[in-house]
Amino acid sequence: MSRASDAIKPRLKAFGQHLEEWAHRGMDQHLRVGITGLSGAGKTAFITALVHQLLHAERDHLPMWEVVSQGRWLGAQRARQPDLTLAPFDYDSAMQSLNGTPPSWPPSTRGISEIRLALRYRPGRGLRRQFKDSVTLYLDLVDYPGEWLLDLPMLSQNYSQWSEQAWHRLAQTQWQNSTQAWRERVAALSGDDEKAVTACAEEYARLLGQLRQQGATLLQPGRALLPGELAGTPVIEFFPLPPQPSDGESELRALMAERFDAYCEQVVKPFYRQHFARFDRQVVLVDCLTPLNQGREPVEQMGQALKGVLDSFRYGPGSLLRRLFKPQIDKLLFAATKADHVSVDQHPNLLKLTQSLMGEAQRQIRFAGGEVETMVLSAIRASEQGQVDNGRGPIPVIRGRRLDGQTMVRFPGEVPERLPPADFWQGQGFDFVPLAPPQADDGSLPHIRMDHLLEWLLGDKMR
Amino acid sequence: MSRASDAIKPRLKAFGQHLEEWAHRGMDQHLRVGITGLSGAGKTAFITALVHQLLHAERDHLPMWEVVSQGRWLGAQRARQPDLTLAPFDYDSAMQSLNGTPPSWPPSTRGISEIRLALRYRPGRGLRRQFKDSVTLYLDLVDYPGEWLLDLPMLSQNYSQWSEQAWHRLAQTQWQNSTQAWRERVAALSGDDEKAVTACAEEYARLLGQLRQQGATLLQPGRALLPGELAGTPVIEFFPLPPQPSDGESELRALMAERFDAYCEQVVKPFYRQHFARFDRQVVLVDCLTPLNQGREPVEQMGQALKGVLDSFRYGPGSLLRRLFKPQIDKLLFAATKADHVSVDQHPNLLKLTQSLMGEAQRQIRFAGGEVETMVLSAIRASEQGQVDNGRGPIPVIRGRRLDGQTMVRFPGEVPERLPPADFWQGQGFDFVPLAPPQADDGSLPHIRMDHLLEWLLGDKMR
Repeated sequence: MSRASDAIKPRLKAFGQHLEEWAHRGMDQHLRVGITGLSGAGKTAFITALVHQLLHAERDHLPMWEVVSQGRWLGAQRARQPDLTLAPFDYDSAMQSLNGTPPSWPPSTRGISEIRLALRYRPGRGLRRQFKDSVTLYLDLVDYPGEWLLDLPMLSQNYSQWSEQAWHRLAQTQWQNSTQAWRERVAALSGDDEKAVTACAEEYARLLGQLRQQGATLLQPGRALLPGELAGTPVIEFFPLPPQPSDGESELRALMAERFDAYCEQVVKPFYRQHFARFDRQVVLVDCLTPLNQGREPVEQMGQALKGVLDSFRYGPGSLLRRLFKPQIDKLLFAATKADHVSVDQHPNLLKLTQSLMGEAQRQIRFAGGEVETMVLSAIRASEQGQVDNGRGPIPVIRGRRLDGQTMVRFPGEVPERLPPADFWQGQGFDFVPLAPPQADDGSLPHIRMDHLLEWLLGDKMR
Repeated sequence: MSRASDAIKPRLKAFGQHLEEWAHRGMDQHLRVGITGLSGAGKTAFITALVHQLLHAERDHLPMWEVVSQGRWLGAQRARQPDLTLAPFDYDSAMQSLNGTPPSWPPSTRGISEIRLALRYRPGRGLRRQFKDSVTLYLDLVDYPGEWLLDLPMLSQNYSQWSEQAWHRLAQTQWQNSTQAWRERVAALSGDDEKAVTACAEEYARLLGQLRQQGATLLQPGRALLPGELAGTPVIEFFPLPPQPSDGESELRALMAERFDAYCEQVVKPFYRQHFARFDRQVVLVDCLTPLNQGREPVEQMGQALKGVLDSFRYGPGSLLRRLFKPQIDKLLFAATKADHVSVDQHPNLLKLTQSLMGEAQRQIRFAGGEVETMVLSAIRASEQGQVDNGRGPIPVIRGRRLDGQTMVRFPGEVPERLPPADFWQGQGFDFVPLAPPQADDGSLPHIRMDHLLEWLLGDKMR
């Protein structure tokens, strides 16, 4: 063999390594999923449960997730997060809460956080199977407050339109008493008294927090509730004004409009550009049961919030969202959580209610080549299903613990298929009782339909 | 007159108005000034005093400020801040502290804030004088932490260079005892134990806070001390490592380098792009007296910090700063504050010391057509000057109140012209006593050389 070919050998070897690396990179995949929630939907518990199911995936627990049921699953492990300026999602602390004595729900997060998992599996078909024994799918879960998602529809409004709607919401029956003093104060406000304007804005932020407790969902601007580094800055110090008086544009109205515009440009858009535009999939968790407990207007407002979000996602070629952010989300899921709080025979109704709140026409829409799905699930099942006979036949019950730890066995009540009419609420209401987390003996987390969710979220990427 | 000319008249009038507006705009001016400080230099007190002097400008109080001494000053008022996402500088609260019973220094700020003043004056010469009776100069003062300015030199380093210097600083005599336990812990650290790395980073941040109390100035990364929204994120979780071992790049070192790079790219640069690049002038406040009290190494490190900042400002055509941010700063001031804490005969020495710490050669440098100035001042004078005769002739004393409110009359000591040599510190040290704010009877704030500062800062713009 000539010396020349000796010299070439190591080069060929290096070339082979490059090829292998390249093939490896080309076959490995990456999926970035945004997860948010409306109205205390249990976002932290959901993400914790999702990570837990992935780290401990077993066929018995996740029968509907194909990669596991087909025996192609190799395992998952946590990997370093790609985005260093985001807080890490605190999975360990959340698991500590759930495994505590007694178990407690993990505290809710107040900003954006991220966790990356490396999922290894054997490809089932196609090129991958020919070339590789195993492939890695990197899954990034990005947790952000629902309040920020609800700011999205503001981008298609101007201040007057927003103000009119927001003012109208404040004056609705359910909340009119809580907001009356503030509305009177604003009606008497003038634009040149800067201190009074700031005080009104601070009071408005407190009011939004109070309305959230009273079942309101559409609370804008979202950063008034969760200001972070914007605390005390003028850009979040705006609020709706009473319907415009006939003498035209006042100084106060101009000031509010200026701040509204700055908020959209300098707060909402940058968030969507930096984060939202990079999501491949989006999960929106929804708790429909708490608003049902609270009355007609909370349920109605939850519906408006869902429609607003859905409208924002309908991005045709000329839509606002498409022009601004070039989003790449191809799957959007609305998941009605807390399915464990009702008996299993009510799950179809919970699904129908969620879909009906989103608007009949919008149930099965496709957007820009993507799909919208609705699902009913429980990330961590806190009850067991049963039946008792009340003498007139068996009725379904759930068995679980109340938040105070007390055991309960009760008929949880029926879920309506759609928003009940106004007169219904005069005579009756709903009473879905919040549950404490289950005491798991074997370290596993019971769930309802998380395997369906995993198949929807990851199935097509793990063929 | 024809109907045609009737129609033209209003148009001409409108044109005239446009012209006037245009002239108005063209003549009004805008100046954006960054203000920061090293080592508890009294930044909040300085900005408060600056605003107060502008709002209450009187010839008697500001003899060296020409626009006032020439009788061309018309007055100042606060205007709405232009940058809605910045916190407003809280002038009112700061004045409340200063006017309290007893008066107290305003609390220091922990982020970036802004205040705008509209300054009206009669032009003294030139085109402005021909066209206008009065002109407005909009002055934006932007307050940001000195820690962020000290991150600037990191942009011209890589992780290895930074780590070597930062590790060396931690091991210096002054601080070696405080840092020893942490340095040993880091020396035993491995890169794959993520929790231990995070714990070391948290401990490092606490250590930086402790070193600041002990007189250290060069504390990097600055966001470890003031994290804001970056609290808990990996991008600030890096620290120096012991000098590189011979077996090359370890996993830990690679992780630190990755985070160092991300910090420079995603934290330091955006701050400079968004804020620093828009400043017209920059004031850096320096307290040289506190480091003198603390020993040789604190003074020396203050000098390193000043040189680092000055080097960053030396932006020639190919310099890092120029390539990155296109800065437009044409005047840079290093102001040695707390001149009221020494007797007036020591002011020349305080100036010489400041200049000597910045490096002899750098005293009078010009940068990219701009100028560097050093100045000794007291934004709010908390002492009165006097003399007492100790039997061997008069010696200078200052009369003021200690922070506990107790009145004192004392010889404050001499300020060295330059950093005293090592053997000096063995036998003696300095003892400059902190003073409480003065009790102003007439609502005015006494000062030393704030009129010089105003002339330097604004004089050329108010001709």
